[in-house]
Amino acid sequence: MPRTQFWLLSAITLAIVSTIVLLLSYNNNTQGLAGAQDNNDFSKKNIVGGHIPGYSILETSGDVLDPISLNVTIKDAVVDPMKYLREFNYGRVSELPNGTTLREFTLVASDDKVKEISPGVFYNVWTFNGTIPGPTLRATEGDLIRINFINNGSKSHTIHTHGIHKADMDGVFETVGAGGRFTYEFTAEPFGVFPYHCHMQPLEEHIVHGLYGVYIVDPKTPRPPADEMVMVMNGYDTDFDTENNFYTVNGIPYYYMHHPIQIEKGQLVRIYLVNMLEFDPINNFHLHANLYQLYRSGTSLIPDEYTDMVTMSQGERGILEFKYKFPGQYMFHAHKTEFAEKGWMGLFLVKDPMSSVPISNETLIRNNVTVNDYPQELSLDQKRGGDI
Amino acid sequence: MPRTQFWLLSAITLAIVSTIVLLLSYNNNTQGLAGAQDNNDFSKKNIVGGHIPGYSILETSGDVLDPISLNVTIKDAVVDPMKYLREFNYGRVSELPNGTTLREFTLVASDDKVKEISPGVFYNVWTFNGTIPGPTLRATEGDLIRINFINNGSKSHTIHTHGIHKADMDGVFETVGAGGRFTYEFTAEPFGVFPYHCHMQPLEEHIVHGLYGVYIVDPKTPRPPADEMVMVMNGYDTDFDTENNFYTVNGIPYYYMHHPIQIEKGQLVRIYLVNMLEFDPINNFHLHANLYQLYRSGTSLIPDEYTDMVTMSQGERGILEFKYKFPGQYMFHAHKTEFAEKGWMGLFLVKDPMSSVPISNETLIRNNVTVNDYPQELSLDQKRGGDI
Amino acid sequence: MPRTQFWLLSAITLAIVSTIVLLLSYNNNTQGLAGAQDNNDFSKKNIVGGHIPGYSILETSGDVLDPISLNVTIKDAVVDPMKYLREFNYGRVSELPNGTTLREFTLVASDDKVKEISPGVFYNVWTFNGTIPGPTLRATEGDLIRINFINNGSKSHTIHTHGIHKADMDGVFETVGAGGRFTYEFTAEPFGVFPYHCHMQPLEEHIVHGLYGVYIVDPKTPRPPADEMVMVMNGYDTDFDTENNFYTVNGIPYYYMHHPIQIEKGQLVRIYLVNMLEFDPINNFHLHANLYQLYRSGTSLIPDEYTDMVTMSQGERGILEFKYKFPGQYMFHAHKTEFAEKGWMGLFLVKDPMSSVPISNETLIRNNVTVNDYPQELSLDQKRGGDI
Repeated sequence: MPRTQFWLLSAITLAIVSTIVLLLSYNNNTQGLAGAQDNNDFSKKNIVGGHIPGYSILETSGDVLDPISLNVTIKDAVVDPMKYLREFNYGRVSELPNGTTLREFTLVASDDKVKEISPGVFYNVWTFNGTIPGPTLRATEGDLIRINFINNGSKSHTIHTHGIHKADMDGVFETVGAGGRFTYEFTAEPFGVFPYHCHMQPLEEHIVHGLYGVYIVDPKTPRPPADEMVMVMNGYDTDFDTENNFYTVNGIPYYYMHHPIQIEKGQLVRIYLVNMLEFDPINNFHLHANLYQLYRSGTSLIPDEYTDMVTMSQGERGILEFKYKFPGQYMFHAHKTEFAEKGWMGLFLVKDPMSSVPISNETLIRNNVTVNDYPQELSLDQKRGGDI
Repeated sequence: MPRTQFWLLSAITLAIVSTIVLLLSYNNNTQGLAGAQDNNDFSKKNIVGGHIPGYSILETSGDVLDPISLNVTIKDAVVDPMKYLREFNYGRVSELPNGTTLREFTLVASDDKVKEISPGVFYNVWTFNGTIPGPTLRATEGDLIRINFINNGSKSHTIHTHGIHKADMDGVFETVGAGGRFTYEFTAEPFGVFPYHCHMQPLEEHIVHGLYGVYIVDPKTPRPPADEMVMVMNGYDTDFDTENNFYTVNGIPYYYMHHPIQIEKGQLVRIYLVNMLEFDPINNFHLHANLYQLYRSGTSLIPDEYTDMVTMSQGERGILEFKYKFPGQYMFHAHKTEFAEKGWMGLFLVKDPMSSVPISNETLIRNNVTVNDYPQELSLDQKRGGDI
Repeated sequence: MPRTQFWLLSAITLAIVSTIVLLLSYNNNTQGLAGAQDNNDFSKKNIVGGHIPGYSILETSGDVLDPISLNVTIKDAVVDPMKYLREFNYGRVSELPNGTTLREFTLVASDDKVKEISPGVFYNVWTFNGTIPGPTLRATEGDLIRINFINNGSKSHTIHTHGIHKADMDGVFETVGAGGRFTYEFTAEPFGVFPYHCHMQPLEEHIVHGLYGVYIVDPKTPRPPADEMVMVMNGYDTDFDTENNFYTVNGIPYYYMHHPIQIEKGQLVRIYLVNMLEFDPINNFHLHANLYQLYRSGTSLIPDEYTDMVTMSQGERGILEFKYKFPGQYMFHAHKTEFAEKGWMGLFLVKDPMSSVPISNETLIRNNVTVNDYPQELSLDQKRGGDI
């Protein structure tokens, strides 16, 4: 692999882009300030003096050079987080003589690719089906799951799925060597959300390089309709010091800061959240300006807690359900600040389906939204003024 | 700022005070030993041999010089923890035409003060209304909250409140520059306990310096009457190595070891507990000789767990309810030993309202209680002897 | 103490044993490979190509030299984990005049022994009754507990029990010096699972050296019959750098990898799980191929969660209940990889009481199970094929 070339090229690109961004952001800030000084209702009412709208950029701490304002090229990236977000793999479906639904999946492990995991940062990724996280497998309680596992890597790998199954289907003792294959078969039970991951030793190496994904078992009576998405919290240790250099949700740091996840006002959103972060003892998830019903492990239909914060150690997971009452953009991120500032943050863009004024996506990608960008927000604000 | 002078002065003061305390504690220990050798019923029954009552002092590990036996001067301190404990700010209350209660609060950020955070340790604190933690805001579900925010600091700051509100009231994108003002307005919902904090980047800097506080939303049908108090778990990184040097509940390490929180036997105590500790992945709360009903996030009226241990990552919080059946003094502290031994410990002094013999507060402040100090304890002990 | 001799001897023994194990494991691997290439039904159906059955050995990361394949000698060990697992100390029972059951226990602290905590690793252990963890005390709600505590150590020690009791029974202020004695008395309440531990400062030293154990209070109406066991998660800091070098469940790293815990298919298993790990912020427990009902703190009869993962900070605990549907061997371990790979892992060996073909324990101790070792598994597998 021409990794040295990659790095050189990346460094140069980074330098050029940084300069451009610096100049742009300077302009944006100036405009933002000007915007705040405009005599619109919103600023008159709420703001006095030195107000700079927009989420600050070029202000990070630690070893990350302004990644918020840079964008990864999906072509080289280890995953397309927007595609991954709502993509559920239900398998090749057939019916067994006894009426049971059989779902067949194929997972191929590889460990020789170098992919972009953050703008300009390339890393030897170990993947199931080429992405980190691997595909989201989905079934209904009672289905028979068959995973045809092909190890195309140079090392031994397995698939260990959380959930109920026989000992020899556990992906622990049945090591699958380079070029080997294994067929995992088990009944989908119980309903819930589960991680699957390679269980070869040293485990930390196989996990931090990316061999994991999510497996969802739906209850027989399905949960209410919702805008469903999967979020996997992970990290990358790019300098091999057993500390993560980047933190992400769904594989690319800051991705959803550039590309906010569009949802609708009043629509139920359901997140299948799994923590696969290696090295760090815990991870967590904070939702802004809202609370979610939390179903720990997803194994119950009755929520455990109504909150905006959940803490998970590796392998823990849950289902988060919420609706936004107001349009606009809202952050979600780790409340472990270090993780947030090294990439584990994103945005929901809540759109009002009744509103004819679209929120400019252009503006949002700049991450430097001026007050003027929200005309419909302001009218809502005025309306609220009437309420009180 | 004459910080060098402060430090010199502090060092000299520390040296003098340490010597005095050493001498005093030597005497106390001697007295304590003598007390244990007295022929009272308690020691006869329970103790044989080398028994030294009192919580050991001058035995700490790590980089803290005997802070248990030193007392911070409230005049210079960043907060008066005893005043903070039970002080709820209900705002300036008025009624809107539609019958809704409006509660107006004023929060002023500053970032230029140097205050005492531990005996002899002065630190550049960033505060809301001059204290760490900031004032406890309190409202009832459905009230309209208006926070007039004034940034008197030299940096940009905001107020991000956990809870439900509109995007532009979230304190994230609407940066308030030095000298700026912003009015946050939102309906108090849902009921529960929430942190509020500055959301400017680098977030860790704004949080570790102290820009946070607690916001309580009471349910419309109030919780049962109780002795209510607020506890914020935090820390200070005084040498800027992204590791905390001091850990506290309510701003001053060990404060409630010197000044036990007085509560009554049989009285329901309700703690609104919030973890705002920066850098460390988790914090926790252990109550001695008792268990509490735990309401995670405070968003339910049905407790989640009956325990004496709860673990929280930053931003997590809950309500703890308990009663003490027996008078006496009881520790509460982090069960993460490092945090406890660097300041996150305190005492409840449970008083029996029926008892005419008061527990000497003088004695307790010495943190070196002899067995003789509890005559009423002993009679109780004898009575219990009758039970068995 | 002839510690230098111990270390020399240990080093030599380690070298010899390592060599033998290396040779043996080489043979095992070869056999394993051969086994996989046999034409049995299982491998035909599920495996293609380079399949090496058995849990890999000689592949660890960090500072542990191949401990999986080494076995501690129980004679010198700090505890016999198999004996400890299911041993409950109900005390010396008598009845008080008022009908209350009195349970008397004797706990003796010592701090001068050097015991083997991992193969070839000797450590100055501080123990209650000679083992780490100390004995499991067990009572029923409402019983009177009397613990006769004898401090045979050279330092001051106490017993602090989580649960409800009077202030002077809390093991905090009533320091028991070397050679001293103290009688703790309290009513067993509430029902649940609790840690007990020394509360002398510096607490971290007294805990990391081993002064802790488990105290169980059964509800008056007992929980359903089950195969009950106690598991304490702990660690050892053998180089005194305030980081653990070994992690265990029940005192010896990897012990239950060599000696799987035998349980029966379909039998309810109940684990009283307590985390006493010092230094690390959290610990966790992952059960393979199954889920458990989790009762946090054990203080309720209604489970809190159905999961395979629980996270606990020090002092947290719970009850785990599960049944295995299928025979075979199943791992349980920390999902914090570092802890697992430094010793916190074990095996359940689920036996089918209806099956006449015993699973060879010899094979299991080798930790290198070939596919051929499971003839009864294979027939089950074939039968399952019929189900679908």
